Amino acid sequence: MYMENGSSNALKPMDSEQLREHGHRMVDFIADYYKTIESFPALSQVQPGYLHNLLPDSAPDQPETLEQVLDDVKEKILPGVTHWQSPSFFAYYPANSSVAGFLGEMLSAGLNIIGFSWISSPAATELEMIVLDWFAKLLNLPDQFLSKGNGGGVIQGTASEAILVVLIAARDKVLRSVGKSALEKLVVYSSDQTHSSLLKACQVAGIHIENCRMLKTDSSTDYALCPESLQEAVSKDLEAGLIPFFLCGTVGTTSSTAVDPLAALGKIAKSNEMWFHVDAAYAGSACICPEYRQYIEGVETADSFNMNAHKWLLTNFDCSLLWVKDQYALTEALSTNPEFLKNKASQANLVVDYKDWQIPLGRRFRSLKLWMVLRLYGGETLKGYIRNHIKLAKDLEQLVSQDPNFEVVTPRIFSLVCFRIAPVDNDEKKCNNRNRNLLEAVNSSGKLFISHTTLSGKFVLRFAIGAPLTEEKHVLEAWKVIQEEASYILASQVK
Amino acid sequence: MYMENGSSNALKPMDSEQLREHGHRMVDFIADYYKTIESFPALSQVQPGYLHNLLPDSAPDQPETLEQVLDDVKEKILPGVTHWQSPSFFAYYPANSSVAGFLGEMLSAGLNIIGFSWISSPAATELEMIVLDWFAKLLNLPDQFLSKGNGGGVIQGTASEAILVVLIAARDKVLRSVGKSALEKLVVYSSDQTHSSLLKACQVAGIHIENCRMLKTDSSTDYALCPESLQEAVSKDLEAGLIPFFLCGTVGTTSSTAVDPLAALGKIAKSNEMWFHVDAAYAGSACICPEYRQYIEGVETADSFNMNAHKWLLTNFDCSLLWVKDQYALTEALSTNPEFLKNKASQANLVVDYKDWQIPLGRRFRSLKLWMVLRLYGGETLKGYIRNHIKLAKDLEQLVSQDPNFEVVTPRIFSLVCFRIAPVDNDEKKCNNRNRNLLEAVNSSGKLFISHTTLSGKFVLRFAIGAPLTEEKHVLEAWKVIQEEASYILASQVK
Repeated sequence: MYMENGSSNALKPMDSEQLREHGHRMVDFIADYYKTIESFPALSQVQPGYLHNLLPDSAPDQPETLEQVLDDVKEKILPGVTHWQSPSFFAYYPANSSVAGFLGEMLSAGLNIIGFSWISSPAATELEMIVLDWFAKLLNLPDQFLSKGNGGGVIQGTASEAILVVLIAARDKVLRSVGKSALEKLVVYSSDQTHSSLLKACQVAGIHIENCRMLKTDSSTDYALCPESLQEAVSKDLEAGLIPFFLCGTVGTTSSTAVDPLAALGKIAKSNEMWFHVDAAYAGSACICPEYRQYIEGVETADSFNMNAHKWLLTNFDCSLLWVKDQYALTEALSTNPEFLKNKASQANLVVDYKDWQIPLGRRFRSLKLWMVLRLYGGETLKGYIRNHIKLAKDLEQLVSQDPNFEVVTPRIFSLVCFRIAPVDNDEKKCNNRNRNLLEAVNSSGKLFISHTTLSGKFVLRFAIGAPLTEEKHVLEAWKVIQEEASYILASQVK
Repeated sequence: MYMENGSSNALKPMDSEQLREHGHRMVDFIADYYKTIESFPALSQVQPGYLHNLLPDSAPDQPETLEQVLDDVKEKILPGVTHWQSPSFFAYYPANSSVAGFLGEMLSAGLNIIGFSWISSPAATELEMIVLDWFAKLLNLPDQFLSKGNGGGVIQGTASEAILVVLIAARDKVLRSVGKSALEKLVVYSSDQTHSSLLKACQVAGIHIENCRMLKTDSSTDYALCPESLQEAVSKDLEAGLIPFFLCGTVGTTSSTAVDPLAALGKIAKSNEMWFHVDAAYAGSACICPEYRQYIEGVETADSFNMNAHKWLLTNFDCSLLWVKDQYALTEALSTNPEFLKNKASQANLVVDYKDWQIPLGRRFRSLKLWMVLRLYGGETLKGYIRNHIKLAKDLEQLVSQDPNFEVVTPRIFSLVCFRIAPVDNDEKKCNNRNRNLLEAVNSSGKLFISHTTLSGKFVLRFAIGAPLTEEKHVLEAWKVIQEEASYILASQVK
């Protein structure tokens, strides 16, 4: 026991030499995990409730050893892990872990400061401002998003939190002028491809769900939001006495990487005094490459812009980057000023207190990992990393389109390929069932993990390339498994 | 470059041997930090904007080395860090880092999974359910909070998020029966000592601020909420046609660790069909000790209960534990079900999908660190850890009360001592100024960091003991600095 006698080798709450010894052991454990990661099924194959019988009913009274815990991690936890870092993980969108991102997480956990206000750790606030400026320049965002004026960037946990805070800023801005009781008249616009986090943010913020216009898209625009249908919806709502106040455009939708036409949408938002938010959670990473920057053209018309460094840019989860042009819209909606947090620097308005830019009070030192990713890789390496994945996706798209059993459903733009077993005799229902079965079959193999979506009623397979360890061979092996499983399904259907 | 040739020693996005090598280097850096932590001023002494001129204006194009980055951490970042892990950090409430918590963060960052749904990493969901049950048993929470029935626990990022999600669950529950347009009639109750996160949650959720009853407390109840004043306020609101729907009780307020009388408050909540939330963010940790369990007596009347393992229970930030009796109240308010996340296990209702218990979609594997803390220390060591801090605080309270220059302002209950330089000639204004100056003086010394609050107009110093490295000598040294600085101030005032 650490208190009764110092001679025992029981683990102390904190001790530099015990941290060193156990930390080295943990580094080896994690390095070994990455060394053997291809031996695990990409998608966990356990059944619901599997862990309950493997662990005791209550916490131990007495300390156990790290070796006991690591043995349990190997035997009991890892079988239940879906390996997002596997090179054969192609589901959802990627969630990168990198050497630099991992080191940044270690350092952040080691310092373990809580950066709610400037004073509570000045470096945390100031590094965040600087690194968000760096990143804005990588993306060539307009100067209004930089920290030197009224704008600035902030790290949120997730894109869901980013969209919630700007929705609330926009809500309160309009309610300050029209009065609180107008809440039920506020209308939100986006396409039906917009991420579900927008609707959730509306639920949280008390926006009436019947005032959320999820405008229909189809293949004629490759599932991008059509400015004409936005204009039409806005006009109709204005006529009905409602108050359009928030528009969300997406660059790289979750289903199929559709890109909304930002400039045209922004124009409509501006002429109707709506807040225009751009969600580039996934595809924003690609836009650091000059040749993909075109997809965020029009971002200068936006009030806020969000991208997730924790998806496809080597920064461990969570690290969602949000920029706003008017930081005061955020702080007017989200500030608190309890006595126990008052301090000279804040009272004198000399500093940014990020607690007023977000939902939680506490916040981790997340800028460290982004800073380390940017410095340990450098901009050119990051661009090369993105280009490599996009090339792999382009090659896969080619292979799919050459196989008569398959069809590419929407044109690939970034590193996501949307495809399916092609319909036979125009029977869409059977076609959907075949693809559902194919998804089940390839994921049950454990050899890869892909996910799905629906587009205009079609059940579509999503193959998203973006894990740091993914190489050409992993894509080719995965494609082979998909082809084989499809052959079985098509053969059995024929009978 | 990692893609063009593997022979270069440039850092790859992910590589087990590079992670091993650099990870070991980082472990040593962090262990050395803890070894030398007493050489840093507890509160950073930098000026606003200090970092701007020390770092370049943009991210590097080419990779830099870990040594370059670590040199910058030492020279540029650490001076701007307020060292929450310093044994002389007594401000706010503690934010513990421990060997076990740090190891848990490493493992979580290493696996880097996103646990939004059961399928996205079954072990993450199942371990969280199990460990929250373990912890509920340590606290002797009623069975209704365990996962086997309709209740269960979940890890939120912070207490702010915990209170926001239950507020929204409660809001939507009542609005489902009285209709959405009744939003402006909903009334929230708490004491004026309740954490600012409640008011912020109300702002976010669209509860009208004039319907937030922050009921006045004073020294007659040691700043606890008085059931009679709650009953009176509720009756008055009912008469006015308003709808009381949410009550927040606190066990261990931020200003002075006041403990609201849960059983009596819960009774009023129940008879008025209000949601009763208990915020024990700080003091909940103490309640794992049987002799302090009394302070959450009455928790059986609550609908939800929250405590932060990341404050005083050796679990690195963030790890805020929330239990609810009715998980469906949460999921009815916070569920989303986009096609791209649909899967057999979820559709069949066989599993918990924690995305529907929280604001964000993505979530880290935070149960790992809590599991490791509970196993590597064991319940008895954790209780000893808490008892040790409380004993140190008790001793300090004794010292303060023996010094005629000082007075203890509220009786110490846990490990926070609230005190001040005593007033001379009943001059409260001068007394406040002296204490303000004392705060400034001791914090500018760099030798310790304490914070402040106000209670009934008195400027009060808060000395919160709870850092893992804090020993008796650190408390005594800090007290000596406070006494000395107070002598200077009192002497100069006399002149």
